Parts: sequence; C-alpha cells; structure tokens
Amino acid sequence: MFRTYTCGELRLSDQNKTVTLAGWVQTVRKFGSITFVDLRDRYGITQLLFSESLNGQLENNPLGREFVLQVKGTVNERSNKNLNIPTGEIEISVNEFSILNKSATPPFTIQDDTDGGDDLRMKYRFLDLRRNAVKKNLELRYAVGRSARNYLHENNFMDIETPFLIKSTPEGARDFVVPSRMNAGQFYALPQSPQTFKQLLMVSGYDRYYQIVKCFRDEDLRADRQPEFTQIDCEMAFVEQEDIINMFEGLVKRIFKDVKSIDYTETVPRMTWEDAMWNYGNDKPDIRFDIKICNLKKPATVFTNKTDQAALINGADFKVFDEAETVVAIAAPGCSEYTRKQTDELTEWVKRPQVGMKGLVFIKCNADGTYKSSVDKFYPEERLKAIAESTNAKAGDLVLILAGTEERTRKAISDLRMYMADKLGMRKNDEFKLLWVLDFPLFEYAEDENRWVARHHPFTAPKPDHIPVMINNNPAIEDAANYLAHPYANIKANAYDMVLNGNEIGGGSIRIYQRELQEKMFAALGMDATEQQHKFGFLLGAFEYGAPPHGGIAFGFDRLCSILGGSESIRDFIAFPKNNSGRDVMLDAPGPIDAKQFDELQIKLNLKQN
Amino acid sequence: MFRTYTCGELRLSDQNKTVTLAGWVQTVRKFGSITFVDLRDRYGITQLLFSESLNGQLENNPLGREFVLQVKGTVNERSNKNLNIPTGEIEISVNEFSILNKSATPPFTIQDDTDGGDDLRMKYRFLDLRRNAVKKNLELRYAVGRSARNYLHENNFMDIETPFLIKSTPEGARDFVVPSRMNAGQFYALPQSPQTFKQLLMVSGYDRYYQIVKCFRDEDLRADRQPEFTQIDCEMAFVEQEDIINMFEGLVKRIFKDVKSIDYTETVPRMTWEDAMWNYGNDKPDIRFDIKICNLKKPATVFTNKTDQAALINGADFKVFDEAETVVAIAAPGCSEYTRKQTDELTEWVKRPQVGMKGLVFIKCNADGTYKSSVDKFYPEERLKAIAESTNAKAGDLVLILAGTEERTRKAISDLRMYMADKLGMRKNDEFKLLWVLDFPLFEYAEDENRWVARHHPFTAPKPDHIPVMINNNPAIEDAANYLAHPYANIKANAYDMVLNGNEIGGGSIRIYQRELQEKMFAALGMDATEQQHKFGFLLGAFEYGAPPHGGIAFGFDRLCSILGGSESIRDFIAFPKNNSGRDVMLDAPGPIDAKQFDELQIKLNLKQN
Repeated sequence: MFRTYTCGELRLSDQNKTVTLAGWVQTVRKFGSITFVDLRDRYGITQLLFSESLNGQLENNPLGREFVLQVKGTVNERSNKNLNIPTGEIEISVNEFSILNKSATPPFTIQDDTDGGDDLRMKYRFLDLRRNAVKKNLELRYAVGRSARNYLHENNFMDIETPFLIKSTPEGARDFVVPSRMNAGQFYALPQSPQTFKQLLMVSGYDRYYQIVKCFRDEDLRADRQPEFTQIDCEMAFVEQEDIINMFEGLVKRIFKDVKSIDYTETVPRMTWEDAMWNYGNDKPDIRFDIKICNLKKPATVFTNKTDQAALINGADFKVFDEAETVVAIAAPGCSEYTRKQTDELTEWVKRPQVGMKGLVFIKCNADGTYKSSVDKFYPEERLKAIAESTNAKAGDLVLILAGTEERTRKAISDLRMYMADKLGMRKNDEFKLLWVLDFPLFEYAEDENRWVARHHPFTAPKPDHIPVMINNNPAIEDAANYLAHPYANIKANAYDMVLNGNEIGGGSIRIYQRELQEKMFAALGMDATEQQHKFGFLLGAFEYGAPPHGGIAFGFDRLCSILGGSESIRDFIAFPKNNSGRDVMLDAPGPIDAKQFDELQIKLNLKQN
Repeated sequence: MFRTYTCGELRLSDQNKTVTLAGWVQTVRKFGSITFVDLRDRYGITQLLFSESLNGQLENNPLGREFVLQVKGTVNERSNKNLNIPTGEIEISVNEFSILNKSATPPFTIQDDTDGGDDLRMKYRFLDLRRNAVKKNLELRYAVGRSARNYLHENNFMDIETPFLIKSTPEGARDFVVPSRMNAGQFYALPQSPQTFKQLLMVSGYDRYYQIVKCFRDEDLRADRQPEFTQIDCEMAFVEQEDIINMFEGLVKRIFKDVKSIDYTETVPRMTWEDAMWNYGNDKPDIRFDIKICNLKKPATVFTNKTDQAALINGADFKVFDEAETVVAIAAPGCSEYTRKQTDELTEWVKRPQVGMKGLVFIKCNADGTYKSSVDKFYPEERLKAIAESTNAKAGDLVLILAGTEERTRKAISDLRMYMADKLGMRKNDEFKLLWVLDFPLFEYAEDENRWVARHHPFTAPKPDHIPVMINNNPAIEDAANYLAHPYANIKANAYDMVLNGNEIGGGSIRIYQRELQEKMFAALGMDATEQQHKFGFLLGAFEYGAPPHGGIAFGFDRLCSILGGSESIRDFIAFPKNNSGRDVMLDAPGPIDAKQFDELQIKLNLKQN
C-alpha cells in the first residue's frame, strides 16, 4: 500500500503519528525556505509542511499542480488552523517524499469554479471528474443507488439481470441494433427497457423484481437526453395500483432520508392527469409554488367534466378572446409594478416560436385596489377585478392571460408559469415536492396514421371498469376529425407517474396479464395477428401459462440524482456522458470500423448522398 | 394487494387467522368430496383444504396445474403434518376462492427433476424459471451480488457506471458493434470490459471503484460461454499486488460466509504460474485433490529453472520415451486393479483428437508391493518402482505416463488428471479450494504474426524488476524458431488469477500508469504511434496528468455463482441465457430488421454466397 492514511482522515488526536500519505498536489505555497503543499485525494485535503532541510531536494524535483506525491512524515498541530475542513487542525511535517508521477499543466483548473468550458471538460473528463463538484455528484449517485438497493432488499425484491442483446421490436422509440456475426443478416437490439423481461419474471413467480439497469434509445437527442441512460426498474406481482404507490412512495422517502437527511413524512399528494392538465397545463406539474391556471375558456370537446369561466370574458367584443378556442390565465405574485419594458419582455417571450403565442394580455392588480389592463377598452374595471379574482390574484399581483388554440395555449401557459416561477425564485433547488399523477389516458391519437398509439406502452392495463369499453368497441376511427368522441379516447390507464419538482422521475402501470386483452391492445395499435406473433409471441405465449396480476414502475436514475443534487443537468451525474450528438468526445466515439469487421458481420455502408 | 400472506409464511402460531393467499396450483388431490391443493409461490408451498361445501363450485371451475389462484380461509393445524417444509404443520381451510388466471398444460413438469429437455426448457424459459432448482440458482446469484456489494461498500469502494456505447478497439476478442444513426458510417462498440474506464477513474482519483456489469464478446461460443456475461469489476489506486490479493481474498471469503455459511479461514495458497504448469499442466489447477505431475522429461528450452527426472527413464532403449520431448506421469490412487478393459478405455480416451496422444503407458503398483507395466520389457521392476515412487504412487495406485511434444503432452496430462479425478469422485461439488496463481508471463508468442501478444491485456504492468528488460530491449523477434530465447519471453507480469476448484473465477493485474511504458507495451504488440493514438489516445493522454499507481481485478460473476451453486453450467445461473449459437430461443433473437431501420442506419447487408 502506498499510504497508511487517506488525505481526509487525520485529526488532532493523531498527533505525533508517523504516517504515509499519497495523493495529488492541489497547491504549492513557498514561504522563504519553507514550502506548504495541499495534498488531495478522494477523501479530503491534508496540509504538508516541507521544512528547510528538504529545500534542496524540492528544487531538484519541483512539484507542480496535479503531481502524484507520496510523503512520509509526522502529524503535528497546525499553528494556523483552518476549521473549514476536517483535517484543518493538523499538518504533516514531511521527512521523505517521492514523486509517483508527474503531471502536465491541466487544461483547466481542478476547482469548483473551474475555468474550463463544457467542451474542454468533456474532452478531459478524467480531469473534470477530479473536481469536487463532480465527485460529489457521483457520490450522491452511488448513495441513491445503495439506498434504493437496501430498501428494495428489505422489501423482498430480488435483483435479476435481464439480457442486453435482445430482439428489435420498434414501437415508439428507435432501437439501437447490433449485427450478429454468428447469425449473419440478423440483428440484436439493445433494450429500451427490460419491460417484457420483468413481466416474464412475474409470470415465472419472482413476484418482486428490481434492477438498476442501462437502457438504450436511439432518439434525436434533445438537450439533456442521453442515448444510454439508467433506470431503477421494478415490478411486483399480486398487486394493485395502491400497493405500488405505497411501496415506491416508501422508496423515494427512504432515498430522501438516506441521501439528503430529509424526513419526508407528508403523504405525497395525488392528482388525476385531467386535473394536472386543467390546473397546470402539464402532466408533471411543479407544485413547489402555488400558481394555478384559471380556465377562462375551453373548447366543448375537451375536459368535458370541467366548467370554464367564459362568462367573465364573454360579451365584451374583444375579438382575441372571442375567436380563441382557449383562454387561460395565471397570477404572477408581486409583479403588478412591472414596467412597460418588463411586460414587453414577457410578451416577446411568449411570441418566441418555441412558445408560439400571438400576444399576452395583462391585468395589473395595483396595491391600492385598482386594476389596470392592456384591454381596458374592452373590460371595465369591475370586470377586470372579477377576472383577476378568478385567478386568485391579490393586490400587487400581475395577471397574465393567453388566448389561442387549446393545445398550444395550454402548453404556453404552463411554460409561462414555469418561466415566471424561475424569474421569481419560486423553484428552490433545496425544496422537494413529490406528486403522483394518476389516471392517464390509455391511448393517444396519432393524426398522421389515423390510429391509436399507447400513451405509456402497449402493456399497460386500462382501469378495471374501462376494460369492457376496450373489449366491446372497435378501435377503428371512422371520423378522424371527431376522434375525441371515440370510446377509446376516454379509456383511462391504470398508470401512475411520480413527479418531483416538475420532473417525471418515475412512471409505471398495472399491466395487462390476460392474452385476450393483450391481443386486443396490440390490435388497437394496428398490429395484425402475424405481427403480434412475430414481435411478442413469447409474451402472449407466457400469458397462457398462469400469468399473475402484476404491475411496476421505473425511475429515471440519472434524472432523480440530478434533481436531488439540485442540478438541471443529468450529464453532471454521469461519469462518462455523451454530448448532444451522441458522441463521447473523450473517446472520440463512435468511429469507423475495420474492413475485417464489415466482412465478418457481412454488412456494408450505404451512405446517402448529401 | 391480492394476498395478506405468502405461501411460505404461515406457521402453527398463526392458527385461526383469516388469511388471503395467492399463488400457483402445484398439485390437486381429490379424496371423495374433499380436495387438497398445494399452492406455490416464490416463498414456499401451503396446503389448501377445499371442503365439501366448495365441491360444486370446484366442479364448475376446475383447477389445473399452474392456474393462478387466490383463496381466503382460516389457518388450521394439519392432521397429517409434513415436517419437511416450514409450512407443513398447517393448512388453509378455504372459504372463498377465485381463479385469477388459467394455465394451459405446461410443456414440461414444474419440478426439480423435470421431464423437459434443454431446448424445450429454453424456449419456455419463463416456465423453467418457476422450477425450484432454477429459482435457487437465481437466489444464490442475488445473494452473491449483495454480499459483494456490502463488502465492497464497507471497504470504501464506489459503484460507478461506465458507458456501454464506446469505441471499437479490437485487440484480442471481437467487439460487438452498434451502427450510429446520428453519426452515419460510424459505429459504437459494446465493452468487452470497462478496463480503460476504470483506469481513467483511478486517474480521476476515485481510488476504489467497483461495478457489477455486463460485458460483451463476439467470440465463437464454446460450450458454456455467453456473448454477454457479467463481471464484478474492481480497481484500486495506490496499491501493490499484495494489497489487491488481501482485499479480494477477503471479498471471496465474505461471499462464502454470507452465501454458503462457510468460514473459509485458511489463507489462500499462492502458486507461481510456472509451478502451476510444472506440477499440474494447467494455469488454473484444481487442488481439491492431491495428484501432481511427475516431470520425467522436458525440453531444455522450457522450465529452465526446473529439473526433470530423465535419469529414471533414459537408457532403456524405449523409443517412445527417447524420442519424446516431454514425458509426464501421474499416479491414480487405488486404480492398480483396473482391468484390461478399463485401461484400454483410458488409452482410447487419451487418443481422442481432443487430447491427441498416441498412447498411454501404465505401471500398476500392486498391493503386494510388486510392479507390473505395459513397458515391462524395457524397464525392469526396480526401475518401474523408481518411476512409480517419483510420482508418489502408493501400493494400489496406477501410474499413467504420457509422452509427446511439450505443449500437447502437458495439456494432455492435465486433462487426464482431471478426468481421473472426476472418475474417482475426487472433485466434490460441496468442497471449495481457492488458489492464487501469480507471476504469469507478460507476453505470449503469436506464431502466425511472429510477434508478441499480451497474455492478460495491454494494460498489465511487468514485475517492477522486469521493467528495465522491457524498456531496454527491442521487441522484434529476429529468430522465430528460437523465440523463447528473446528477453521478452521471460518478462513476468504483475498479474494474478484467483482459482476456485479448477476454474479461473477472477483475474487482474497491477497496471501500467506511465505513458512511456504504456507506449512501449503497445509498440511491443505491433501498434505504431498512429494506431496507438487513434485507439488509446485518451488513455495515453490521461497518463500525462498525474496517473497514480493502480491495479484491479475482475471476477466472472456467472462462473463464480455456478461453482458456488455446485454446477458446471453457467446457463443455469442466468435468467435468460443464450444458446451456443448466441440465440435467445425464447425471443427468437437475433432476427431481421426493417427496411426503414437499414435506411436510417445507412447500412445494408452484404451476405456471402454459401
């Protein structure tokens, strides 16, 4: 062993011990003939004192940043204590030292606030990983994984590995594929998730399965997506939705306790998908802040159980509202005194193509109880007051109103809600609010193919009382314009998402476990019997041999860690992430392969002309 | 929840409780109007009693094998107790039951000694997994993994995930590759191991890393190899060989304790590679039984530090020995009375092409102290006695002698040693003998290319005192016939294998951490500077920024589990294994992909004519 102690370990109580340390040179400070070195390793930093007698040796073997150094010496009390670090009361009086390896000057500083840009840090990721900020993230990731494993173990879950070289059954996202040399012309696929395997394990009687496992999706990478990502993947047999919710609420609370020392004792609130969309315009609302949407107007075809407040805006001859499908509002707390410049900026923001609104209507709820609006000439103050009150605006708030087509406007008000909350500091990194979103629609309508697609995935069961609706109706959509009137549009899934601070951190469902219902589902998604058999024959077959009721959930491990770490970026929580083109810039991968590899795999390139 | 208790949980102390169970019907036994059902789940089997009053209902809803059944009832003491199972003192008097799912008749019985053949069981793996024999294997696997994680955690190791989509650097085994859609014409590779990543993590200062991780090798599958397999992969910084050996001897002993309740307190013996080859003809000797090779004759070029016993056989005019490079013998205990038929069978066995010997010489060490041999006419009894004694044969033993070329004959005697031990019941499944094999050669000679290849991998360091030999000599082999005389042939690696019962369960090495030495190693393997930079530029670069001394080990998780489980087959310890053609017969994978996938990936097939 090159050391007897780590650089984070020695205390005043170790005084006079003879020790050997090894680590990296963080800083070198010379004071005349005396040299102080901060020696760093994974566990901390210890101050080294090189006295005058070592001066000559140091001059012949000068130390530089990031050199790997081994020292032998004695633990002494420091005259100049640094109580900010655990080893700050001692220093090592060095007797001997040995440079184990030299270092070139790093291309950026190994410090929390490094001078390295993103690209440089990714290229030299092995140096970036030395930074305390990144190390803390990976430590948190390990702690989250360990906490999850312990909780699941205590609850009788078994970690069972599922295969990585499986069959390509593209449905939803694209598969990564792997040409098989031994079966020329054929391909494996990398799993998008172990979904069907964990269901087979339930059929096999393993009743509580989990795995922390890599999954792969060949999608065009949006910011902060990775082609390979990690899930905490879980499945249980003989359960209903309530059982899953309780078990995995427990898991997340345990992680909070173990990793963040947070006693998350409150019951996690539950919200239907419909309420989430109605009140927040979003199926993963951030409920750290209490801004809800006021639905002033909606089309008749959506949210048929909800009532809008159209009376508040109708009859004013204001064309923008009158001609809009949907009019929605939020109250931004404390913003009534926004200047013209500030409100113009907000208007520009909603007009950006990513949001796509035509404009923004304001009502200032002045501190003196008066109301002032950009639509004063259509709405007398009394009406402005009524609208403002329906948004729960208080004196001093600013009401923001958007109008347009239903889907776009609802998304826009949700975006605006988040934007304002960010602006107003209402989304605190160290505050955590969990939420269950339930009762998702089972199907989504795919306009381009005029058919249904599974909102979650094709294995999700409908709510028990919606099963007859699914079985007894033809999935074909006769009247495309009126697809919302099709009975399938109202079938709810036995599915649940766990939301943390406006991010979906986990999602799952009770599964179909009867062959007949699974076939009906596949058929509803446009798969004929031949295709069903080809792609999922093994699962349909398994359902014939005593499949138990079952359900599960999968947590996005990278995302969960990043939120717990108070960061927006999952890349900061992955040791060796890829960039937005799916490249590992450190490895320079992907790359070309040899002619011999092409030959053995019996494939060739077929590049398109650009 | 569909149950209040599992089928392995209820005891006499639960008497009179009202319970709900759910599980699979193992057996149905009718006695007049009373029906007994054994209900099975992951946790055990509980007897159900359906009394007369449920008879009608049962007739309308007959139960079959593997039906999924839910029952409510009362826990009662059994009249006819079965003390072989933990629930054998009670039964459930059923009040209500519900068939949750039916089952077709399984294609084989769900029992330890199933009537299903291998192919059928693999096709219906989800049913095979229900068998107790297979379930126990997966439970053992989970226990081994958990034990390893706990030990490593307690020793400050961190689980850090490394990427799966990396760069193809074929060196040794073939890579599986993954075409990149976003980087058309380029490919990722799946990792053969996380070797370079764990070394980068050491450079990054993570000092104790582990991962239980899937690895991929596209090799022609010999029996009991899988294209995807799992490693317990570990690396440590600031360590020497002794530190690694101690740490991981501790790991394996901890696994024995946790999983097998075995206190493996003895120190694990250590053996040099040379001694292993000399005494056992094998670099992973099974030392559960004490049969060693007697080296009667060897060529001058090999084992230059060892002395053969040629005097025992020379000068007898026995051409077979005189013309052979190598003559080796073992004593088979208690086999002196083998019949002619039995010795003929042994001779046939060594003549099989897989062994490739021309014949087998016997010396029977009779109980009465006399010696009888197939080469009586060349060797008088006195000489037979001397040869026999040099093998440590006792009265009643049978000496088996092989002669031929060095490499083949040594392998043959090793095979014969194992074959005899199997025959004689000396390889007991429940006996475990660990062994460290050390001081492997760093290089192997590749005859076809007349160059050196790395015996372990190109990152293994030479023994410290052999580093100058490597640095100061030209790796080029001038005299191919005499390659053993090249200084590189005698460089020993700072590498170690852990052997359990004749299987390599783990292997590793102290790594090179200096750029210069790593470049010399790559050059010795025939890689010029351009190729080095292209394939491993990231690692060479990392070594410039303060790489610490480091080393590690990787355990073959599948193999370790199978040996601990007393089985020869790793497939029995993998939930969803592939067959010897790399196929998953349950999924029917690999398979064809769509034209759209080819189009997006910009590749096409280029199948060879057969």
